[in-house]
Amino acid sequence: EYPSFIGALAAFKSYGAIIKGIEMDNDGMIIENLAKILSDAKLKPKILYLSPFFHNPAGIIYSKDRKSALIDMLNGTTICLLEDDPYGELYFNEKDRELTLPIKALAKERFPLCYVGSFSKIFGPGMRLGWLFGPAEVVDKCELAKQSIDACSPTFTQVLAHQFFEKNKLPDFVASLRKDCAKRAGIMLDALEKTMPEGVSWTRPKGGFYIWVTMPPHCDASKVFTIAIKKGAAFVIGRVFDPEDKKNNCFRLAFSFTPEEKIETGVRIIAEAVKQLLSGKK
Amino acid sequence: EYPSFIGALAAFKSYGAIIKGIEMDNDGMIIENLAKILSDAKLKPKILYLSPFFHNPAGIIYSKDRKSALIDMLNGTTICLLEDDPYGELYFNEKDRELTLPIKALAKERFPLCYVGSFSKIFGPGMRLGWLFGPAEVVDKCELAKQSIDACSPTFTQVLAHQFFEKNKLPDFVASLRKDCAKRAGIMLDALEKTMPEGVSWTRPKGGFYIWVTMPPHCDASKVFTIAIKKGAAFVIGRVFDPEDKKNNCFRLAFSFTPEEKIETGVRIIAEAVKQLLSGKK
Repeated sequence: EYPSFIGALAAFKSYGAIIKGIEMDNDGMIIENLAKILSDAKLKPKILYLSPFFHNPAGIIYSKDRKSALIDMLNGTTICLLEDDPYGELYFNEKDRELTLPIKALAKERFPLCYVGSFSKIFGPGMRLGWLFGPAEVVDKCELAKQSIDACSPTFTQVLAHQFFEKNKLPDFVASLRKDCAKRAGIMLDALEKTMPEGVSWTRPKGGFYIWVTMPPHCDASKVFTIAIKKGAAFVIGRVFDPEDKKNNCFRLAFSFTPEEKIETGVRIIAEAVKQLLSGKK
Repeated sequence: EYPSFIGALAAFKSYGAIIKGIEMDNDGMIIENLAKILSDAKLKPKILYLSPFFHNPAGIIYSKDRKSALIDMLNGTTICLLEDDPYGELYFNEKDRELTLPIKALAKERFPLCYVGSFSKIFGPGMRLGWLFGPAEVVDKCELAKQSIDACSPTFTQVLAHQFFEKNKLPDFVASLRKDCAKRAGIMLDALEKTMPEGVSWTRPKGGFYIWVTMPPHCDASKVFTIAIKKGAAFVIGRVFDPEDKKNNCFRLAFSFTPEEKIETGVRIIAEAVKQLLSGKK
């Protein structure tokens, strides 16, 4: 995907992977662009990495139709779909819950599929724990690879996570996260509406932590950052989410961590920086 | 080193390293054997991995002279010494403390040296935390590599480890570990003396967790294991500690975990298995 999760890109790159980014729209990866890549005989992709639910950094969620189209495209191939789902629990409205049904649950094992999740967003980022469902031969290899790297994840944090689930503490905790995130997202979207100049667009998340802001193609997010950081507002520039390390006219805003009363101030600082850059370009 | 720590060997192998094992005696790596490897122009070694203090699995500690000889041999080379010291705090007698002075402290930076330690043996194995001192350019690369693999170690366990040190809980805790390990080592050494047949030798540790048992060259530790495990005693076979994955006439006993009253029973079962194998070979 373009954009894609920086942590996954770093892991892939550290093993020498050749990575191609496929454009997304508001419903997920654009199928025609995927078809083009798959039909390129020189590329022979091994893994398709997706983060379909409240995407980091794009902030979108895959539509039901887009998931079906993806499944149709992969059926009968040997390409392993790596479905990364750390944010699926964090929908803002109960009615959107049905959108979070994993491809893993829909695909009926007609192509290789690994589904991974994380405790980082629903229990605590400092736990550094996650899980993997996949074909036995992949899981076995992953176990061996992980054992060679770190022996195992800390048993201490594993016991804590286990207790958290055993004692059924997840539902209440996640319910409060959903409420907080939804409120902050609303404040941030209102602030963007109020402050951003024409020519700038952004995603309207139904869950998760992020909003993806797109400026006109000639705008450099690093320049916006340099101006904004001096006034106390920060974000992550788009290029680090580009699998091909090029495009930089976008940036990621996170509403999950910033206190409610500071969100509008931050967005205003960033909007002013964007305006300054846009006017300088005229 | 032959033998060497299985976890380090697995990590090296997972990155495609070519590994050579250098024999040790009771004072550490045999310098003449190291000299032979270093003078082999085809090998061009990049890293020399040592575990000089209460070696896992060998159970020995490097003598002062052996450390000096090693330093002399490495001075002026570009071979990076990786000094792994998870057990150095666990000497049985105060008088042996001086033996635990790291090569890092003696070598005066005249060749590249990385010193690594671990909380696993002095705080808790389930923490999965350690530390590294090394040249800045190595530390920077390690940081990047680790970040690409796991983002970071859990902050939760890092905070616990920090508190453990801050509150000065290490000295008392390690003092009790030293006492327990020394007592168990004594029981195990007595049991070996009583039960093992002629032709079998073992190391006499001054600290740490392990005793390394050597049988005659034709004896296969896997066969001993198969007999002993049926009667309820287990150990780790020697081959997994051989960097070249060949020699299997040795095995590792750990006295750190087994309750005192069970140690003699376990050693007796293993000794019987060794005797059975030796008599079968006649």
